[in-house]
Amino acid sequence: MGKKQSNQVKEITPMEVDFPQWYTDVISKTELVDYAPVKGFMVIRPYGYAIWELIQKAYDKRFKETGHENMYFPLLIPESLLKKEAEHVEGFAPEVAWVTHGGDKELGERLCVRPTSETIICSMYSKWLNSYRQLPFLYNQWCNVVRWEKTTRPFLRTSEFLWQEGHTLHETPEEAQAETMQMLGIYREIAENYMAMPMVVGQKSEKEKFAGADATYTMEALMHDGQALQSGTSHNLGQHFTKAFDITYLDRNNEQAYPYHTSWGVSTRLIGGIIMVHGDDNGLVLPPMIAPIQVVVIPVAQHKEGVLDKAWEIGKTLEKDFRVKVDDLDGYSPGWKFNQWEMKGVPIRLEIGPRDIENGQCVLAARYRRKSSSQSGQSYPDS
Amino acid sequence: MGKKQSNQVKEITPMEVDFPQWYTDVISKTELVDYAPVKGFMVIRPYGYAIWELIQKAYDKRFKETGHENMYFPLLIPESLLKKEAEHVEGFAPEVAWVTHGGDKELGERLCVRPTSETIICSMYSKWLNSYRQLPFLYNQWCNVVRWEKTTRPFLRTSEFLWQEGHTLHETPEEAQAETMQMLGIYREIAENYMAMPMVVGQKSEKEKFAGADATYTMEALMHDGQALQSGTSHNLGQHFTKAFDITYLDRNNEQAYPYHTSWGVSTRLIGGIIMVHGDDNGLVLPPMIAPIQVVVIPVAQHKEGVLDKAWEIGKTLEKDFRVKVDDLDGYSPGWKFNQWEMKGVPIRLEIGPRDIENGQCVLAARYRRKSSSQSGQSYPDS
Repeated sequence: MGKKQSNQVKEITPMEVDFPQWYTDVISKTELVDYAPVKGFMVIRPYGYAIWELIQKAYDKRFKETGHENMYFPLLIPESLLKKEAEHVEGFAPEVAWVTHGGDKELGERLCVRPTSETIICSMYSKWLNSYRQLPFLYNQWCNVVRWEKTTRPFLRTSEFLWQEGHTLHETPEEAQAETMQMLGIYREIAENYMAMPMVVGQKSEKEKFAGADATYTMEALMHDGQALQSGTSHNLGQHFTKAFDITYLDRNNEQAYPYHTSWGVSTRLIGGIIMVHGDDNGLVLPPMIAPIQVVVIPVAQHKEGVLDKAWEIGKTLEKDFRVKVDDLDGYSPGWKFNQWEMKGVPIRLEIGPRDIENGQCVLAARYRRKSSSQSGQSYPDS
Repeated sequence: MGKKQSNQVKEITPMEVDFPQWYTDVISKTELVDYAPVKGFMVIRPYGYAIWELIQKAYDKRFKETGHENMYFPLLIPESLLKKEAEHVEGFAPEVAWVTHGGDKELGERLCVRPTSETIICSMYSKWLNSYRQLPFLYNQWCNVVRWEKTTRPFLRTSEFLWQEGHTLHETPEEAQAETMQMLGIYREIAENYMAMPMVVGQKSEKEKFAGADATYTMEALMHDGQALQSGTSHNLGQHFTKAFDITYLDRNNEQAYPYHTSWGVSTRLIGGIIMVHGDDNGLVLPPMIAPIQVVVIPVAQHKEGVLDKAWEIGKTLEKDFRVKVDDLDGYSPGWKFNQWEMKGVPIRLEIGPRDIENGQCVLAARYRRKSSSQSGQSYPDS
C-alpha cells in the first residue's frame, strides 16, 4: 500500500499577496474541484457540482419559460461537417481533440470531440425544417465540450467544461436579433439575481467575436484583481451557418428561404466568477440562491443533554424553506466547525448551546465578504 | 438550394408484421430521436429528451434521499489508467473510442473516451480517502459515455448514450452488498412506479457480469417480442478496483485497509424499454408519470365563438396539476390532431366543442395499449 499525503489544513494565501494562489487555495481547500489525471481537465467535486446544479436549474427554468426545449446531439462530429463553415473551422480547429480509432480499427474519417455544436446541429436542422410554420426553432442542450487549451485554471479555462448551448432559427433577422438580446438579458438576470454578480454587457470586437458570427454579445463580471471575466455570450449568427448547411424552408410567399440563426452559452466558468467576485481571505462567500448549504446549524457542547435534539429540531424546521446542514460530527470543536463552514462560504451559521436553549435564543452569524485589512473602506463584521 | 424530403405521413408497420420496423417507425414518426451523421450515434429530439428529463428527475430524487451526491469526472481517461484492472480493460478495450490528437499535436499517451468511469473515479478516490471517518463515499454522475458498437438501435444500443453511474466505497463487504441491492431496488421501484414496467431482477452469470465485478445484478423488462431487455445493473465490485488503484484508508483499528466498492447505472435505454413495453400499432403509449404531455386539450370547431377561450381556460386550470398542451394549431382537423397525439402516446385527450360548452361537459379519451387484432384477450376501448 502506498503512503498517503498529509491531510493537514494549510492556510489560504491572502488575495493581496498572490491572487492566483488565493484562487487555487480556495478551490482546493473547499473541495469544489480537483485536478484530473489528464492535464487541463478537472473533477468537479460534490460541493462544486451542487452549485452547478443550482445554476442549471435557475437558467433551465427561464429557458423553458421563454419557450425553449432541451435536446441532445452527439459528442462526436465528422471532420467534414466542422469544415463546412470556413471561419468556424479556422477558429476551432487548433483546439479540437480528435478521435481516430474505434476499438482496434482506424476510422475512415476522424471525428472531432465537440468544442461547440453549431455544425452538427445545423446538419440536423437542415433535415427537419421544411416550412415557416415550424419556425422558430427554439432548442437548447446541456452537455460537456472539449477545447484543447494550453494554459488552464479550474472553472475559468479548462480543456473540458460543462455548459448549455442554445441554437435557434428564425424567419427574420429582427427576430434573430431579438432572441440574441433576450438570451443575453436572461443570462444577466440570473447572474445578478441568483449569483449576485453585477454584469457589464456589450458587443465583442470583430477580432474577439465567435468564429462564424455576425455579432457576439457578452456579459462580463469584474474580478477582485480588476480584470473582466467573460461570463456568457450570445451570438447572432445571421445566415453564415444556414447557408453553409443548406437549411432552407418554404416561406410565407411559398419561396425557398434561409432562416436566421442564433446560439448562446453559459458554462461552469460562472462558478469561477462567483469565487472571484465574492470570496475573501477566509475563503468562499456564496450568494444564498446558489449556496448548496444555506444554513449550517452547529451545536455547542453537543454532549450535554438536549443540545443535539434541539439542533436537529431547528434543522428540521428550517429544512422546509432552506437547504440546511446540521453539523453534529463528533470529535471536532465548535470553533473548528465555524472556521470550516466560514471557509466554505455558507451564508448563515446558527449556533445552539445549553445556555441558548435555556434562554430560548440562538446565535446567528452571517457570512459577508470581508475586505482585506490593507483595503480601504468599511469592513463588514461577520455576526 | 437542395431539395427537401417529402414530409408525408406514412403508416406505422404493425408489430406482428415486423417488430423491428414497428420500433423504427414509432421512434421516427413521433420525433423521439433521429440518426446522427456518425453511424451508431443518435440525436435525442425534444419529445424524447423530455422523457429522459422526467426519468432523471425521478431517479435523482431517490439517489439524493438515500444520501448520494452528484459529481462530474472528465470525459477522457489515459490508456494507462484503463489498463490498471485487468478484467476491466479486456472487457472494454474493444469498444473504446480513442483520442490521439489535441489540435495539431499527437498526444504522448492516447486517451479513451469514457465507456464507464470506474478507473478515473478510483484514481481520484485513492487521493481523497484517508480515514474510515470519511466512509461511505456515496457519489453519482450523470453524463454521456461512448462504446463503439457494431450493431445499433436508437435508445437500445448506441455508440453514445446518456446515463448515470453511481460509485460508492464502504468499510465492509456487507455494506457494499447492501448498497448494491439498495440501488437495484431503487432502479426497480422507479421503473415500476414511474414507467409502469414490471421488472424481473436477478444475478448475471459469470460470463455476462461486468468486467471487473464480483457480482452483477440486473433488472430486465419483458418486451412484446418475448425478449428480455436489460434495463439497469448494479455491481458489487468487491476490492478488484480498490486494490488495483491502491485505495487505502486507516480503519477503526488504525490499520491500512482497502474499502469495498460498488457501481450502478441506468441509461437512455430505458426509453427504448418504455416504447417496446407499452407501445401498440397506433404508436407510443406513455405512462403518465413520465409523459412530457399528460393531457392534450383539443378544441373542436375552434373558429366558433368561445371555443378557443374555453380550451385555454381548461388548459390553464389543468396546468396547475398536470403537464398540459392546448393544440390550437390552425388548419388541421380535430381528427388529424386526435391521431397525432394518439400516436405520440399522450395519456389523456380532452375534446371541447360548442355543443360541449353548451352542455357544460367535455369528451375525455384515455390512451391505453390496444392489442393487435390477431392477439387474443380483451381489447381496451380508447375512450
